[in-house]
Amino acid sequence: MLPRIAIIGNGQLGRMLKQAGAPMGIEVLPCDPSLDEPVELKPDDVITVEQELWPDTPRSRQLTAHPGFLNARATQLIRDRLSEKSLLDHLKVGTAPWCNVTPDHTTEHLALVGDKLVIKRRQGGYDGRGQWRWKQGEPALDEWLGECIAEKMIPFDEEVSLVGARGHDGKCVFYPLTLNLHQQGILHASVGGLKRLQPLQAQAEEWLTRIMVELDYVGVMAMECFVVDGTLLVNELAPRVHNSGHWTQAGANPSQFQLHLRAVTDLPLFTPAVDGLSVMWNLLGRDWSTDWLAVPGCDVHWYEKDIRPGRKVGHVNLHRGAVADLQASITQLAALLPEDDRSPLHWALHEIQADSSA
Amino acid sequence: MLPRIAIIGNGQLGRMLKQAGAPMGIEVLPCDPSLDEPVELKPDDVITVEQELWPDTPRSRQLTAHPGFLNARATQLIRDRLSEKSLLDHLKVGTAPWCNVTPDHTTEHLALVGDKLVIKRRQGGYDGRGQWRWKQGEPALDEWLGECIAEKMIPFDEEVSLVGARGHDGKCVFYPLTLNLHQQGILHASVGGLKRLQPLQAQAEEWLTRIMVELDYVGVMAMECFVVDGTLLVNELAPRVHNSGHWTQAGANPSQFQLHLRAVTDLPLFTPAVDGLSVMWNLLGRDWSTDWLAVPGCDVHWYEKDIRPGRKVGHVNLHRGAVADLQASITQLAALLPEDDRSPLHWALHEIQADSSA
Ligand SMILES: Nc1ncnc2c1ncn2[C@@H]1O[C@H](COP(=O)(O)OP(=O)(O)OP(=O)(O)O)[C@@H](O)[C@H]1O
Ligand SMILES: Nc1ncnc2c1ncn2[C@@H]1O[C@H](COP(=O)(O)OP(=O)(O)OP(=O)(O)O)[C@@H](O)[C@H]1O
Ligand SMILES: [Mg+2]
Ligand SMILES: [Mg+2]
Ligand SMILES: [Mg+2]
Ligand SMILES: [Mg+2]
Repeated sequence: MLPRIAIIGNGQLGRMLKQAGAPMGIEVLPCDPSLDEPVELKPDDVITVEQELWPDTPRSRQLTAHPGFLNARATQLIRDRLSEKSLLDHLKVGTAPWCNVTPDHTTEHLALVGDKLVIKRRQGGYDGRGQWRWKQGEPALDEWLGECIAEKMIPFDEEVSLVGARGHDGKCVFYPLTLNLHQQGILHASVGGLKRLQPLQAQAEEWLTRIMVELDYVGVMAMECFVVDGTLLVNELAPRVHNSGHWTQAGANPSQFQLHLRAVTDLPLFTPAVDGLSVMWNLLGRDWSTDWLAVPGCDVHWYEKDIRPGRKVGHVNLHRGAVADLQASITQLAALLPEDDRSPLHWALHEIQADSSA
Repeated sequence: MLPRIAIIGNGQLGRMLKQAGAPMGIEVLPCDPSLDEPVELKPDDVITVEQELWPDTPRSRQLTAHPGFLNARATQLIRDRLSEKSLLDHLKVGTAPWCNVTPDHTTEHLALVGDKLVIKRRQGGYDGRGQWRWKQGEPALDEWLGECIAEKMIPFDEEVSLVGARGHDGKCVFYPLTLNLHQQGILHASVGGLKRLQPLQAQAEEWLTRIMVELDYVGVMAMECFVVDGTLLVNELAPRVHNSGHWTQAGANPSQFQLHLRAVTDLPLFTPAVDGLSVMWNLLGRDWSTDWLAVPGCDVHWYEKDIRPGRKVGHVNLHRGAVADLQASITQLAALLPEDDRSPLHWALHEIQADSSA
């Protein structure tokens, strides 16, 4: 009997972890940590997270006090950008120059980091929320003081991420780097399996290994990076499965969801097999259409959440064995969309064309 | 909103239909028809089956009386081998010579069909249960009279099956023929995607189309066949997803489970994309081992049923993009098994080797 896996959080990541466990009969129990009622836990349950931060409730205290709760230190360090960035510096992992915005910070202090900055709330931000742009000459907002870090604005060429896992025995495995399209701080699309990112793979794996080893981490972790002149800078970490790894549901075996379940329950880990190229397109505040199912290789993941502007309510994976077929499917899907929604798919199409003709 | 799909039956097929619907947010509700309590049905629910026969209960009457119940005629005809074989004859679909074993049947009547026969209970048999072998000179059992059909024993070369689907608009789509290994009347393993079966594909599709059209059938149907001297004879039909289509979970998109959900809810149908070769190995009355998860491309499906001798309690799909990799994975898995359990995998390995070197 495999242990049950309780998840702190019950959003789409918990949902997809549950779906990944179902075929094998691995029970996954997403738990909303904002509720007070305790959940019924068994002594050998494994507890892992789909979010870094949660309210302090009887239930969240119960979950984190359970002996099966994994990665307490990693989650605590990563949930606060101050300790997260300090960790990266300590491990000599490249990252954007930054400073802590202390309660007595002035614009002179900010200017020491750079001319243009991104101010980020230390805790709780996601999808670009809790961020401001600042440039030389502008005032600092009071609400930043003691609450934010300031990062140098990086004129990056593109953004990539590495999703990997570490097992109880310390073994680390990785997917190939994913290319990500962010707009207004939110992930719109990813392409997995691009050959042209291979030269960056070793550096990325070396850094994420260093991080996971330092934290004695077990499970899937994601590392978001900027690419600047062909080198990497780490933007942030996620101690969990990650939106930029969703393409692995279609184009890799095991997927990041099954990989996480394997890692936390001490099941065998190996470098996942990746079948060519895959595209993930996020459904942001919009419904899906069953017409899309006429596109070969198009898998719709719908999270059954209320649709609110900009909210991640689903994603579409596009995967086909042959590159030409994948291109045809992307083109076919784009033609079914209103013109305004096509740009992430056209971006992916362009990337795939460039990669396969290189 | 897509309609909900209620399933008559709550075994592994209903379970896997439910798993197939989950990512898209299609609700699938397997229902045990042997229970009395009615289920809460909505007016626009679609009702389909994972078994052909069920007890007459308040619940089963409720499900079949619902206006969304599909394929009443097909299910009724196919659940009785007498009407099933009559249908095949009527449609001029090749099948083993047979006769109805009437209440006043004698061994002379049996002998008219052939020297060696398989006697099959008309209703309720599966996995080879409810079958007898008879040969010239042996007595007929009383319990056959009025209860069975008699089929000529076919000295077949091998067994294959065709899994396909028909939509509400009449469109039919098919997977490539699957090669099946039956022993003692029970499916042990399948290989999907063999090139050498392609010459039989057109005949098989023609027959299954004829059958589905005649029955005005909607959903996935499977057709089991004998191959004799390079031609097909139909053994039996299944008006549902089928064990010999389980490999499509790993090697085709959509899988037979998603394909069935698409067909019954009037979602787009197209010929599923098949990626090379796949192997399915049935777990018959035996547990699985987490060691198997060290084999790349090995997906374990565990039905969470009690283990009883010979009972189908799970299956393992093996799929990898490259034939050589697949062979390596089969070999690796076989080495993890007790010697007595290896023969279905060795059979599959042999088939794959022969097919790829042809
Ligand atoms: N220092 C920076 N320089 C330039 N762009 C940046 C910088 N930091 C963030 N960005 C841009 O903003 C996006 C969101 O930033 P970040 O990942 O820190 O925010 P988040 O709200 O935590 O996002 P997520 O939803 O990925 O958790 C980045 O993907 C990048 O496009
Ligand atoms: N007429 C026949 N001649 C030779 N072998 C036969 C014949 N009929 C059945 N068999 C063998 O027995 C197996 C089981 O037969 P059949 O498919 O009719 O039984 P079943 O109990 O309905 O099986 P299933 O579990 O597939 O529904 C066949 O796959 C085949 O191997
Ligand atoms: Mg973040
Ligand atoms: Mg980010
Ligand atoms: Mg049968
Ligand atoms: Mg059969």
